[in-house]
Amino acid sequence: MDMINRQWILARRPQANIGPDDFEYREITFVPPILQDREILVRSRLFRFLPTMRTYMKGSQFRKPMPEGAPMQSPAAAEVIGSNNPDFPVGSIVSVMMGWQDYAVLDPSDHSDGFSAGFGMLKPEGMSLIDFEGLYGVNSLTAYFGLLEIGAPAAGETLLVSGAAGSTGSMVAQIGKLHGCRVIGIAGGRDKCDWLVDELGLDGAIDYKSEDVGARLGELCPRGVNIFFDNVGGAILDFAVDHMAPFGRIALCGQISSYDDGESLATGPRNMMRVIYWRLKMQGFVVSDYRNAFETAYADLRRWHEEGRVRHSSDIYEGFRLLPRTFMRLFDGTSKGTLLLRSD
Amino acid sequence: MDMINRQWILARRPQANIGPDDFEYREITFVPPILQDREILVRSRLFRFLPTMRTYMKGSQFRKPMPEGAPMQSPAAAEVIGSNNPDFPVGSIVSVMMGWQDYAVLDPSDHSDGFSAGFGMLKPEGMSLIDFEGLYGVNSLTAYFGLLEIGAPAAGETLLVSGAAGSTGSMVAQIGKLHGCRVIGIAGGRDKCDWLVDELGLDGAIDYKSEDVGARLGELCPRGVNIFFDNVGGAILDFAVDHMAPFGRIALCGQISSYDDGESLATGPRNMMRVIYWRLKMQGFVVSDYRNAFETAYADLRRWHEEGRVRHSSDIYEGFRLLPRTFMRLFDGTSKGTLLLRSD
Repeated sequence: MDMINRQWILARRPQANIGPDDFEYREITFVPPILQDREILVRSRLFRFLPTMRTYMKGSQFRKPMPEGAPMQSPAAAEVIGSNNPDFPVGSIVSVMMGWQDYAVLDPSDHSDGFSAGFGMLKPEGMSLIDFEGLYGVNSLTAYFGLLEIGAPAAGETLLVSGAAGSTGSMVAQIGKLHGCRVIGIAGGRDKCDWLVDELGLDGAIDYKSEDVGARLGELCPRGVNIFFDNVGGAILDFAVDHMAPFGRIALCGQISSYDDGESLATGPRNMMRVIYWRLKMQGFVVSDYRNAFETAYADLRRWHEEGRVRHSSDIYEGFRLLPRTFMRLFDGTSKGTLLLRSD
Repeated sequence: MDMINRQWILARRPQANIGPDDFEYREITFVPPILQDREILVRSRLFRFLPTMRTYMKGSQFRKPMPEGAPMQSPAAAEVIGSNNPDFPVGSIVSVMMGWQDYAVLDPSDHSDGFSAGFGMLKPEGMSLIDFEGLYGVNSLTAYFGLLEIGAPAAGETLLVSGAAGSTGSMVAQIGKLHGCRVIGIAGGRDKCDWLVDELGLDGAIDYKSEDVGARLGELCPRGVNIFFDNVGGAILDFAVDHMAPFGRIALCGQISSYDDGESLATGPRNMMRVIYWRLKMQGFVVSDYRNAFETAYADLRRWHEEGRVRHSSDIYEGFRLLPRTFMRLFDGTSKGTLLLRSD
């Protein structure tokens, strides 16, 4: 049976900001191959957008660049429509890295690249597709493990979160609140800052676009920052180090400030004397290291959500045609919560 | 009884490299005051020189600058010659921060600044004055706790040490060897590098003055660096981050590369993406936090030294007059081991 496979391919590798011309739409005839051992055939249902996809495009020291002329690599929730793998029966929904296309053949149990957090996870019965990629998605798991394992929050401590209105950051902030922290968020724009304080109950928010971040940190964190959960890096990390309290912990989650540049290495956190004298810890992490504890995180997130103590918002678009434009929303500062696109 | 108190005072606060004109010798009449509760009167016996004294001179975000016109602040081993503190009887030897002078009155149990590592320690019976400040001095304790507590070395791992020929670095390297690590040192000059390999048994050494540090790290650490003990900071730290192995630990001990500059904040470690993806930990520490475990460290160091598994060298000068010139040896690269000056 021949099928039409819609694809958005990477037409060229952008050097600076991404734009619509970097992608090209095409339809190809897809003849499903004979599935090898452990392989499955999937149909994409819901695409998720991550800032780090930007780094996959250009490649990095950790990952080969995406090939030009091939579908844009992307995480998605997909339906299994053919299976030669008993762990992934036909009809189940699985989180995969499958690219911007309708169909793909892959082995969901291959974690050899070490970074495919959450890929190969099966959606539990009774969980909605949106919740699977949203409330219980990789962003929430990243927030959960980064804050609790590296930040190790204690009641009364001050938690600072950059990218606080984003999918990961907003979950970090809420989990921090329910652990008794005083939580300050950094976000871009008055709307996002108001949302953080008025809707999510943060103790303060800093608009990095219009405010002096260093001065505001001094005002809002007079006793210093005990935990900094950093999604942004660059100048924000540099400011934060200057305001850390003794024995502070910095969970390094992302460096979105540098993803969209041609040159990703500008300056690092410069105040290393403070890191030494104030016994700071800066630690990078990757959520897939905590794979064996995902069930615990699911249970906590479910309970907190049912009790109304965390809320999760998704920003959901519809239609395969909108994939590139939706992706660009990650970088123009208009997206809030988890950015998803449901395929038609 | 009037006494003559010789002093070297800080004549002016240097902006860049320190020189002989920054200090001024004087002799003043010293009338010992009535000792208050817990105070002692001490006579300096052995001065120790630390790179961080450079930062005390200009002041920093953590410490007020040394006052001009007052004795240069410095650690020393001193004899108690008057005491109103039962813990520090007359005749005992105590490690103190007393400045470049013959006599001082102080409370050795005051640790309120939090950074006076080892100050207020009494020299145990049977330990020589030189060993008290050398083999068992703060530099060795810093090496011991920084490597074992933050580096957490395992046999077979690769340990990289900057400032490896220095007092702290050479001890780190040796403690690393006896924990089964492959140890690579970074030092300035062929002589120091030869000494590290031929005398201390390191597996390799990089001369940062004549070699391409990045290229040599690639050659000597093909599987990456598991532990980096950094005394230097700056460009060396930046290179090291580029060569860390996954789950690597960086113990941040010092930033000597920036102590002698007018401007101490150049660039930090820039490759933060590697810190994230490779789950690196960078952690600052201050040895005084481990005060309660110093006895354990003494016992280990004594055993290792008696077994011939660590050696410690001190570079000892004689004569109060030589204080400034001896201090400058720390920064011109000619000193090896713990730099000490015995007062006359």
